[in-house]
Amino acid sequence: MAYRIVTISRQFGAGGHTLGHLVAEKLGIPFYDSEIIEQAVADTGFSPAFVREAGEYASTTHSFLFNLALSHSVAAGPGEMSNYDKIYIAQAKIIRELAEKSPCVIVGRCADYILRERNDVFNVFVHADDAYRAQRVLESYGETPGKSIEERLEEKDKKRSLYYRHYTDREWGDLENYDLTINSARIPLEMACGWIVQALERNG
Amino acid sequence: MAYRIVTISRQFGAGGHTLGHLVAEKLGIPFYDSEIIEQAVADTGFSPAFVREAGEYASTTHSFLFNLALSHSVAAGPGEMSNYDKIYIAQAKIIRELAEKSPCVIVGRCADYILRERNDVFNVFVHADDAYRAQRVLESYGETPGKSIEERLEEKDKKRSLYYRHYTDREWGDLENYDLTINSARIPLEMACGWIVQALERNG
Repeated sequence: MAYRIVTISRQFGAGGHTLGHLVAEKLGIPFYDSEIIEQAVADTGFSPAFVREAGEYASTTHSFLFNLALSHSVAAGPGEMSNYDKIYIAQAKIIRELAEKSPCVIVGRCADYILRERNDVFNVFVHADDAYRAQRVLESYGETPGKSIEERLEEKDKKRSLYYRHYTDREWGDLENYDLTINSARIPLEMACGWIVQALERNG
Repeated sequence: MAYRIVTISRQFGAGGHTLGHLVAEKLGIPFYDSEIIEQAVADTGFSPAFVREAGEYASTTHSFLFNLALSHSVAAGPGEMSNYDKIYIAQAKIIRELAEKSPCVIVGRCADYILRERNDVFNVFVHADDAYRAQRVLESYGETPGKSIEERLEEKDKKRSLYYRHYTDREWGDLENYDLTINSARIPLEMACGWIVQALERNG
């Protein structure tokens, strides 16, 4: 089976976004990141600011699947589903459509999970130690007043992890969900890009 | 920093042993697997059968670090350390000596953890889904009377996981401990071998 889609999940600051760009460029296929997907969801009628907020939100009470089951039960009715969950559903629909349309690279937004039933998807996770990520984040985004870089790394990763768990009932960063995981502090992104392209071309 | 050592951890049947062989052959460096390390430990005076058994054993009560602390406490004295733990210590010493002697590939036996203070070690984890591993195990080792292939996979992985946790206080298969993890059901071992060699040569 040929791989057509690459999904990239990543710790904050590990370079997953950059890696996605490199792979898409090398293969000459579209690149979709959170911003692009948020925009597509907003185009369906939600306020852009709310869509952006939803991408970072995860309920700490019921899981999405629980809410989904509830919303389908006769007793509760569709009113039980939160707007956050509705945005997730809209986003999942868009991701499935993008994957259907043409080969592409998708960064973040549980794309690995959303596309789990396709067998042409190659799933990648990018991580690195805190020191490496701190340096990268400071170089790319600079300081944030009143918040240490360690706090920012932890906060972002925690949000991503909660969001992923909420919507997938899986653990974020469980290596069994990925075909390839790389430590970008030890493997240059250009090298990892070459490996992903090789995996895709061999199956192409 | 150049990488000199490759450690490979692996789920049972995922092909980690084969991958280690391929890498060592390609780089022309020694290959050490559990059997070779067990032999080296046996050479220090333990019975070979007991060393083999110890490699699969992990206490479910106190962790190794707890035992180690206990064995150094004045109250308890060195008599508190089990023979299993003594074998682990002998094995760790041998692994450190092998790593010091020359570049090499080491499969299993917590080598990633034992060598964690060196910065010339490249840590790999190999996994695959149950169906792929079941097929590989049946092809390589055949059936085991009275035990299904699923039971064998689960039992072996559980032992490796408990052993790793007991001696390292880390979780086996936590991707943050590895520079590269690969799903061998989706990435051919020869391709992964090429990637590891590339990572080592670039740093060489």
